[in-house]
Amino acid sequence: MKIGILGTGVVGQTIAEKLVQLGHNVMMGTRDKNETLAKTGKDNFGRPAFSEWLKNNSKVQLGTFSDAASFGELLVNATSGVGALDALKLAGEKNLAEKVLLDVSNPLDFSKGMPPTLTVCNTDSLGEQIQRTFPKTKVVKSLNTVNAYLMTNPKLLPEPTNIFLNGNDSNAKAEVKKLLTSFGWDEKDIIDMGDISTARGTEQILPIWVRLWGTLQTPIFNFKIVVEKK
Amino acid sequence: MKIGILGTGVVGQTIAEKLVQLGHNVMMGTRDKNETLAKTGKDNFGRPAFSEWLKNNSKVQLGTFSDAASFGELLVNATSGVGALDALKLAGEKNLAEKVLLDVSNPLDFSKGMPPTLTVCNTDSLGEQIQRTFPKTKVVKSLNTVNAYLMTNPKLLPEPTNIFLNGNDSNAKAEVKKLLTSFGWDEKDIIDMGDISTARGTEQILPIWVRLWGTLQTPIFNFKIVVEKK
Repeated sequence: MKIGILGTGVVGQTIAEKLVQLGHNVMMGTRDKNETLAKTGKDNFGRPAFSEWLKNNSKVQLGTFSDAASFGELLVNATSGVGALDALKLAGEKNLAEKVLLDVSNPLDFSKGMPPTLTVCNTDSLGEQIQRTFPKTKVVKSLNTVNAYLMTNPKLLPEPTNIFLNGNDSNAKAEVKKLLTSFGWDEKDIIDMGDISTARGTEQILPIWVRLWGTLQTPIFNFKIVVEKK
Repeated sequence: MKIGILGTGVVGQTIAEKLVQLGHNVMMGTRDKNETLAKTGKDNFGRPAFSEWLKNNSKVQLGTFSDAASFGELLVNATSGVGALDALKLAGEKNLAEKVLLDVSNPLDFSKGMPPTLTVCNTDSLGEQIQRTFPKTKVVKSLNTVNAYLMTNPKLLPEPTNIFLNGNDSNAKAEVKKLLTSFGWDEKDIIDMGDISTARGTEQILPIWVRLWGTLQTPIFNFKIVVEKK
């Protein structure tokens, strides 16, 4: 399948690697191709520059946000939360229309220091903002509650954990669910929360997530919902 | 130990029952004793009126917020989140001073319909509001992430799950931890998140909690944090 990934950071890279392994054709989109390729040295997380990564992942194509959105039959929003709407506007409403957009981004605001706060509050979510801005796009929020490495490799953890789906379109959620199972998520562990407004729940899990990261001293953890036996 | 519980709803009742079972002396506090005792018929949750419950739990004393706060060597805030600060003001700053206050309440706002939203957002929490309003009180937030029945009986679930502590005072957290282990929580499953500002994380888990309640069709569930093995 042709898949366009918006965003060239660690999340986009990790998802791109997995998709290529699974045999998909992947184009990543960025604001300015030349600028993205011109970066040298390690990034903020101590990872090699994107151009280095691209050399080792030569099956991945690089284009603008618009190129990647136009290329993909299915799209992944792996931009930073604060940049998501701008990136999607550059991708172009027409290129996004009628397509499934898997939104893995989080509305994190790092401008007030660590831990980050959220740019949304109570009666809204980034998932809904994207869906409202692009009503013809089938937005499905998922994977935003785990670290990039777990998104594509949930078996890193010693026991099964849960992942959530939020979205208005059942067929789009079914398509994302298929993608998630190909990443290693067991179908029984994927919880369909309901329409896109339920992204308020899965995005507001981030304030405890970022603090657990500090407490546990690792980002490689996830939530398992344990329910009473009836 | 003499324990004062502020609030006479299902959360206060469930905690009172457990504390009595464990041999503690319990006084529950309410705004207006006569009004609380005069209620008849079932409450909003289909439970018997408080006076009925009290007949079956005759070791529990009933007083005003101020009586209960004065009585207790350790206090539990089991009021509704929106009523918490008012109830605590009625309890009296002097009666709360130097005491451990276990705050199990959540800043839920039901005024905009279901599911409820939160009265706090990003840069504050109810736990911090209480701590700021009563600086001499040792506020420890805990148990707010589970249903009342699980608070005092975590073994209802088929496997161990996690519970969190937020608070500025280490000794106060140690005291609450002891209480939690007497309720059935294993020490290894109690996660000390840090100072009271970390209540932002545990309170903001509620938006997913209330939606999972709908999805799972039961409030008897909890989060287990699964961490990578190193």
